[in-house]
Amino acid sequence: MTDARRYFPLPDPFPMLRGGVLHQAQLAYETWGKLNASRSNAVLIFTGLSPSAHAACSEQDPNPGWWEAIIGPGRAIDTDRWQVICVNTLGSCMGSTCPSSIDPDNGAAYGLNFPDLTLEDAADAAHALVQHLGIDRLAMLIGCSMGGMTALAYMLLHPHGTRGHISISTAPQAQPFAIAIRSLQREAIRLDPAWNKGRYGEASYPEAGMRIARKLGVITYRSAMEWSGRFGRIRLESNHREDQPFSLEFEVESYLEAHAKRFVRRFDPNSYLYLSRASDWFDVAEYGHGSIERGLQRIQIESALVIGVDTDILFPVEQQKIIADGLTEAGARVQFVALDSPQGHDAFLVDTQRFGAAIRSYLDTIEIPDTT
Amino acid sequence: MTDARRYFPLPDPFPMLRGGVLHQAQLAYETWGKLNASRSNAVLIFTGLSPSAHAACSEQDPNPGWWEAIIGPGRAIDTDRWQVICVNTLGSCMGSTCPSSIDPDNGAAYGLNFPDLTLEDAADAAHALVQHLGIDRLAMLIGCSMGGMTALAYMLLHPHGTRGHISISTAPQAQPFAIAIRSLQREAIRLDPAWNKGRYGEASYPEAGMRIARKLGVITYRSAMEWSGRFGRIRLESNHREDQPFSLEFEVESYLEAHAKRFVRRFDPNSYLYLSRASDWFDVAEYGHGSIERGLQRIQIESALVIGVDTDILFPVEQQKIIADGLTEAGARVQFVALDSPQGHDAFLVDTQRFGAAIRSYLDTIEIPDTT
Repeated sequence: MTDARRYFPLPDPFPMLRGGVLHQAQLAYETWGKLNASRSNAVLIFTGLSPSAHAACSEQDPNPGWWEAIIGPGRAIDTDRWQVICVNTLGSCMGSTCPSSIDPDNGAAYGLNFPDLTLEDAADAAHALVQHLGIDRLAMLIGCSMGGMTALAYMLLHPHGTRGHISISTAPQAQPFAIAIRSLQREAIRLDPAWNKGRYGEASYPEAGMRIARKLGVITYRSAMEWSGRFGRIRLESNHREDQPFSLEFEVESYLEAHAKRFVRRFDPNSYLYLSRASDWFDVAEYGHGSIERGLQRIQIESALVIGVDTDILFPVEQQKIIADGLTEAGARVQFVALDSPQGHDAFLVDTQRFGAAIRSYLDTIEIPDTT
Repeated sequence: MTDARRYFPLPDPFPMLRGGVLHQAQLAYETWGKLNASRSNAVLIFTGLSPSAHAACSEQDPNPGWWEAIIGPGRAIDTDRWQVICVNTLGSCMGSTCPSSIDPDNGAAYGLNFPDLTLEDAADAAHALVQHLGIDRLAMLIGCSMGGMTALAYMLLHPHGTRGHISISTAPQAQPFAIAIRSLQREAIRLDPAWNKGRYGEASYPEAGMRIARKLGVITYRSAMEWSGRFGRIRLESNHREDQPFSLEFEVESYLEAHAKRFVRRFDPNSYLYLSRASDWFDVAEYGHGSIERGLQRIQIESALVIGVDTDILFPVEQQKIIADGLTEAGARVQFVALDSPQGHDAFLVDTQRFGAAIRSYLDTIEIPDTT
C-alpha cells in the first residue's frame, strides 16, 4: 500500500475540552506543495465527517484523493503557489487517534472510554501541528461540512490564527433537522446488538446499524431534485429473490446500497458516534454569550469566501449567509456565494467545476506576503 | 373500549392485482352523518399510511379522531350535509384484513404469505364497500398522503366513481427521494433480527426497526423550518445517564422519542412493509402509457380541490400541481391551493385552520343533486 500520511505526535498529555486527556496521541496528515521561506503560504484543510487526510494524489500516494479536482498544480487550490495541509480529524479512524486506538494506560482499545470529543479538540490538535510545522499564521483555513465547523472552532480559539478562510457548506451551529438526522444515525448504530456499547470486533461489527446510518447520510447529502432527474422511477433489471422478501427494486435503492457497501467496515462505528455528536455540540453562539453574531465577532481575519448550495437540506444555505454576514461584521472582506448545484450538501465533492471556479477566483485575490 | 368500527365482508374470493386472492377478508370503516334518499351525498376518505378509520368522534366512540377538527356538524366537512365514510386501508392493521390476520386456509397469521398489496387493491376493496352501501357514485372522494394515491387509483379504476375529489399532500407517483426514505424505513425493520422474515410475536416484536422507521418518518413529515422555530437548540433538563452512552440531549430528540413510543407496538411491522411498498409501486403513468398526464385524462370527475404544502419534502408541492393540471386537462373544474403551512407533509393533520378553510370553501361550491 502506498501511503502519503505523516503522523504528528500530539503534546502529551493532550487535554480535552470537556475533561479527560489523551496520552501518546497522534494526528495523521498529508501535505502538497512547498512552504515558502517566510512560511506565509500555508493552507490548512479540515474535512467532513468521513474523509481521510488524502485530499489529493501525490508521488507517495498516486491514488486520487477526495478533492482531487480542486487541489494540485494549476488547480483551484494551486500547489505551485500554496502549501496545502489536510488533517485527519482527531477522533477519526483514518490514522489519527480515535476510539479504536489503544489506550496506553491499559493496552486495550478505548471504545467508549475515549474522552468526550468536541470540534474544539479537533481544532486544537491541528493547531498544535501547525505550530510544530513552524507556521505562525495560516494563509488560508478551509473547512468543508463538519470541517467548516472545525475551522470556525479553530478561529474562535485562535482569532489571529489565519489570514483568510474558505467556509464550505457548513453551519455556525446545528439546527434541529440536522440534529434529528444525526441522532437517528447514532441510534441506528446503538440499537444494533453487535455494537455492544462500543465493544465490537471484526467478527461482530455492527453492520446493520452502519448501513442505516450511511444510507440516511447519503439521502440527506444529496437533493431530491438531482435524484428525480437521475433515477426517476427506473427499476433494476432483476430484483426478484424469493429468499429476500422486500428486496431492492428501484435504481435509487441500488445506489444507496452501493454507498453503504463502500462505507461499512471501512469506517469505525465509535468514531462515527463521537464525530457525529461533536457536530451536534458545536455552537458559535457559545463564544458570543448566546449570539452567533457576537461569537463570529471574535474572529480576526482579513478575508473570507463563504459558499453554500441552494439544494442543501442538511446545512441550508441560510446558515452560510449567517456566517458570511457575521464575518463581514467582524471586519473581514467577505465573498458570499450561493451556488445552484443540484447535488445538495455533497455538491462540493461533485460539482467541482462551480466550486473550483469560486475558490480559484477568491484565491486569485489573495497576496502572499514576504513575512507573516 | 368504545368502538364505532363496522366491518364489511369483502367478496370472497377477493382477487389481488398482482396475483393471489384473499378469503373471508374484511374492511373496517366508520361513518358520520346520514345518507340522503337519493344517496348522492356520500364522502369517502382514504387515510395516510398509519391512521385508522376513526377520523372523528361519534356517539359510539367519543374519542377524538385523527381529523377531528375537520369533520363534524358545521365543520369543514359538514356531517349535517354529507355522509362521511372513512375506511381503514386494506392491509392496515386497524381492523381490516392485513398480514397479521389469520389465513383461513391454514389457521395461521399470513405474515409474508399475505399476497402482494397494491393501492389498487385498497381502492377496489373500498369500492366494493361503497357498492354494498347502495351508493352508485360518490359525491366526494378525499385522500390524504398515501390515501391521495389510493383515491387516484379508485378514480383510475372507476373513472365515473365520484363527482368531486379532494387531493391532499399526495403524488401521482413516488419520486426517488420518497422511495429512498421508505426503502430505508423498510430496511430498518427487515434488519431487526426480531423481525425474523415476518414471523414475530408479542414477545419478539421488532421494536428497534420500528423505532428507526417511525423516527425517520416523523423527520420527513415535518419541516426543518418549523423545527428551527420550535426546538432550536433547546436541551433537555437532565440527560446524563451513565448506563446510556450517547443518549438524548436535545429537545428535538425527545420529540422524536415520544413519537416513536406512541407508534411502536401499536402498528404491525408487516402491515407497515406492505403499505410502504404499495406507496412506492403506485404510478398514475401506468394508466397512461408512461405518461402521468394521459393517465389522469382517464378520470371523469366534475370538480376537484388539490392542496399541497410548500414545506413538504416527502410529497413536494410540484407533484400536486401536476395532479391539478392533469385533472384540469381531463375536463374537471379544479382549484389548486399551495399552502405555506410550516408543518410540512403533516400540515393537513396540524394546520387544520388553513386546510379547513380551503376544504370548506370548495365544498360550499358543490351542489348535492336529487339523483345521482
